[in-house]
Order: sequence, then structure tokens, then C-alpha cells
Amino acid sequence: MTIDFKQDILAPVATEFAAMDKLINEGISSKVALVMAVSKHVVEAGGKRMRPIMCLLAARACGETDLDQAQKLAAIIEMLHTATLVHDDVVDESGLRRGKPTANATWNNQTAVLVGDFLISRAFDLLVDLNNMVLLKDFSTGTCEIAEGEVLQLQAQHQPDTDEATYLSIIHGKTSRLFELATEGAAILAGKEQYREPLRLFAGHFGNAFQIIDDILDYTSDAETLGKNIGDDLMEGKPTLPLISALQNTTGEDHDIIRRSIATGGVSELDRVIQIVQNSGALDYCRQRATEETETALKALFQLPESEYRHALYNLAQMALHRIQ
Amino acid sequence: MTIDFKQDILAPVATEFAAMDKLINEGISSKVALVMAVSKHVVEAGGKRMRPIMCLLAARACGETDLDQAQKLAAIIEMLHTATLVHDDVVDESGLRRGKPTANATWNNQTAVLVGDFLISRAFDLLVDLNNMVLLKDFSTGTCEIAEGEVLQLQAQHQPDTDEATYLSIIHGKTSRLFELATEGAAILAGKEQYREPLRLFAGHFGNAFQIIDDILDYTSDAETLGKNIGDDLMEGKPTLPLISALQNTTGEDHDIIRRSIATGGVSELDRVIQIVQNSGALDYCRQRATEETETALKALFQLPESEYRHALYNLAQMALHRIQ
Repeated sequence: MTIDFKQDILAPVATEFAAMDKLINEGISSKVALVMAVSKHVVEAGGKRMRPIMCLLAARACGETDLDQAQKLAAIIEMLHTATLVHDDVVDESGLRRGKPTANATWNNQTAVLVGDFLISRAFDLLVDLNNMVLLKDFSTGTCEIAEGEVLQLQAQHQPDTDEATYLSIIHGKTSRLFELATEGAAILAGKEQYREPLRLFAGHFGNAFQIIDDILDYTSDAETLGKNIGDDLMEGKPTLPLISALQNTTGEDHDIIRRSIATGGVSELDRVIQIVQNSGALDYCRQRATEETETALKALFQLPESEYRHALYNLAQMALHRIQ
Repeated sequence: MTIDFKQDILAPVATEFAAMDKLINEGISSKVALVMAVSKHVVEAGGKRMRPIMCLLAARACGETDLDQAQKLAAIIEMLHTATLVHDDVVDESGLRRGKPTANATWNNQTAVLVGDFLISRAFDLLVDLNNMVLLKDFSTGTCEIAEGEVLQLQAQHQPDTDEATYLSIIHGKTSRLFELATEGAAILAGKEQYREPLRLFAGHFGNAFQIIDDILDYTSDAETLGKNIGDDLMEGKPTLPLISALQNTTGEDHDIIRRSIATGGVSELDRVIQIVQNSGALDYCRQRATEETETALKALFQLPESEYRHALYNLAQMALHRIQ
């Protein structure tokens, strides 16, 4: 069965999603025209809004009835996500994201850095309005960990000795932590203490799987379907799991080529690296790890009562996994 | 009388200041080595720590006795300030700050952007620990306004039609707002509702004076004494008050030269611009405005009971004004 995003994931919270979208547009309003223009540009260039949808589904799966609060939280999550994307594009010097010009490319680095700062601050401002100290602490600690994960990724760049544990710390910070905030935050707001840990575990392991899958696709996808180019990570000398695993599985010249590619970055040996990654069994290992992470995620999810919302979260995890099958 | 910073401003809160300094170092600790290294670098490259000293003096002037809380707030203020400096240096492509290499120059833009994000998040994390919703709301709104002020400054760059009202909005956001948070925040923490508004007014108008003075010095100072080079603002086409006022006071060729200099930036006509600014009476007007802002600030300050702490804040305002006399 092919999972359809709109039908099988979004549909149960379509009404809340539309309300959330309006809240984002209100949230980014500013008396400074340039702040508005850039925020609007980056929010509209957004993707499927997977994180706020997870937040809304988690809230509903908890039995949350104060949907107004949950919608605000979902909007905050998307604003935080957008802020990190804006800064990431400055960091990566990206000109395009999902085929559209980035903020730094459309305006400049200066504008992108400062509007990113505005979006972080505005997200916190809206969060304070939710008037929940437990939620605030979760988010303030979480956003520190997200920033630390991003810096850890920078620190690991061009380091062929990066191990799987460090890789997991990186992806937890840069990807999974916001997923955790989206779902655990919904449980906190709903006052459902018993669902906090299951939802955090679901989102954390799903996030790990999602990022591992993304890193696999950097060595297998074709540009057309993804908006991400094959070899992007290699270009930047990022020691992602396919390369870490390939180093484990190889010796001699193959091993040296991978090490050198991480150390120097660039794609002059891309074809050879792809060949080594594929032949070494590294991709099989990555697929296995993504499947394991998904299974752990789903095990945690099943601690919540059955509902169409829980099922939509299940579908989301399955759909992510289908990308590498 | 010459005011001595250490003796006449810092001395009454020297003990609290030392404790606050330790808190900053604890605050920037991170398990990610690169986060620690960069944070330490930028915090140590800090200046006089005027903002946290204002916070401590304001707390004491309110009669605050829970100094532990006030010290934490002062540390948070300095961390927020440091974060904005790190991002400002990326924005301005600065290589040096106070004669020391900036984070973006020592590492790179990427690292500076992300460590700045970490410092903002950590500051909020420590703020949440103070467990005061009124304070949190003041800071979350305030940091939005700071970011908006920074973007407004970017928007006004190269715009010769920028008026004094817009200039005041810019400097309120980029400078005065954090001063307000430092002092009004101290009153909120101290539970002294009646001193919130006087301290906010004092800090806001002092901040305006401080920034106007800084902008005057860009056309009168010599590089040796300030770490700021004459003509820096002109280089970037920033329509600061000396230029806005010069445009008001000139016609014909002089007027055209100033307009063109703002529009294009650069310092090819620096000598001529300085001459026009000085001859047009613009600097006199700026000095008058700085004096007025200081007077308004002090009038608000005198609503607090007399104390050595209030007197130290008075000295601070006087010392700032002395820079242009």
C-alpha cells in the first residue's frame, strides 16, 4: 500500500492545520516591512509542515480538547523550524531550498541572520503566552541542545574519525530534538503526563530514522525527485552514517578514499565513493539502522490508546521508511 | 570632576559583579567543545559589562536583597548582549572588535551564527529558571523588538530619506531595549512594581543618549582611543543622526554629497562629509539631543530613593555624556 501524505497523515487534523497556518502568518507579522517580507518568504517556501502536523496529531492522540493551545504550539514549532532553516542556509551558503531561492540568496546573509533571530524570539514570545512553565523549560533546554547539535555537526565536518555515537548525537540535536519538542510538548500542554515519555521516544527515534534515511538518499537519490543533490553531504565533508559504516567495512585503498573524501570534502571522487559505499554493505547497514529506529519509535507509539491520530503517526513513520525501499 | 568607571560606577556592586562573572562562565559551559571555545572567546572579548552592571545597580537601587537572582539576571543580560555582538559581527563582516579578532574571523561565519543561536537559547534557558512569567514576557517581547530594530537598521541602510523618527526606532531596538530589560527586569525580579517604569525610562533614554554619542564619535573620534574607526558608519551607508541632521541643515552641493554618501556608502568623500557635518551644525544638534535624552533619563532615575546605587547610575549617564564634551 502506498501511503498518501494528505489522505493518510494530514486528513485527521486538516481543520487544525488550517487554523495553525493562519497563526503562523499572524506570528510573523511585524511593523518592520523587511522582517515581514523575509519571514513570509521563508514560511511560504516551507515544505509539508511535518513537524507541526506531528504536534497536532500528538495532541489529538493524547485526547487533547483545547485545540486552540495545540494549534499555537504547532505554529511555534514550525516557526522554530523555519528559523533554523534560515540560519542553516546561511551556514551552508545555500542558494536554493526545495527549488526556491533561499533568504540569504534573495536578500543577503545579514538579513537572513537577523530575521532568523527574530523568528526564534517570536517563537519564544508566543510560547510564553501559553503560560506553562514545564513547557517553557522543555523548549528552552531543547533549543540549546538543537544549537549544540548544529555546532557538533560543524565540529565533525572533515573529521574521518567521527564515530556512530557522535553521529547519533549530531542527528539527535539537529533533527530529532525538535520532533521531540513537537510531540512531548503536545502531551505537556494536554496535561497528559503519562504520554510525555512515549511521545518523546516515538518522535526521537522517528527523527533518527528520518535523518538516517535522508543521509542514505544523499548517496542514492536522483536530484529530480528530492530537491537535494546527490553528493551534497560529501561535498561538505560531512561524516554521515553511510561513510562511517563504509569506513568500518573497508580496508586498503577503498578505506583511504573515503577517509580522504571526508577530510577534504568536494565531489571529485564522488562516483568512486558511491561505488564503495554501495559495495561495502554500508547502505544495507544504514537501512537496517533506520528500520530499527522506526521499530523502536512505533513500539513507544503503541503505548498511546488506539485512535485515527495514532494511526496517522504510524503512517508517517512508514512513509519515511518507504523512501529507501 | 572626571568619573572613574571602576571607582564611581562599578564599586558599589563589585562583589555581585564577581559572582555574576562566574555565572556567565557556568552558563556558557557545554559538552560540545567548539561551543565552549567560541563562547569563552566572545565572552572574554567583552567590554566593560556595562549592561549587567546597570542590572545589578538597578536591583540594589530597588532595595533588592535576593542578590542571587539579580546576579543571574545580570549574567543573562550579558549573554544576550554577547549573542547579538556575535551575530552583528557576522552581519557587518567585522574582523576585529575592541582590537581582538571576532568569532567569525577566528573561526568562520557558520560557527559564529550557530554559537550566537546557542547563546540566545541558553540565555532563555537560564531566564526560565528564574521562574517569573512577567519577566519572561518582558524579555520575549523585548528580544523580538531588538531583532526588529536590527533589521530596521539594515532596511534603512543606503536610504537618504531616513528621518529622525526612524533613526530613533532603530537605536531604541538595537541599543536601548536591552538596557531597558536590564533595569526594568531587575525591578520585576525585586517585586518593586513602582520602580519598573522609572527604571525603564531611565535606561531607555540613557540608551538613546549612549547611541547618539556613539554615532557622533563616528565623525569626530580618533581610532586610537575607541577601537572604532572614524567613518565606519559612513562606509556602510548608515543614515545616523549626524547625517540626518546635516541633510536638514544643508542645501545644494553639500546636501547632495551627504545624500550620495548615504546612498552609495564608502569613504571616498569622507573628509568632505566630515567637514559638512561639522560646519552644518549637525554635531551641535546631536550633542543637544544626547544631553536632552540624558536629562530625561536622570529625571526618571530620581524617582528612585537616594542611594549609592542610584548615584552610580547617575555617574554612568554623566560619564557617557563626557565622551562628547
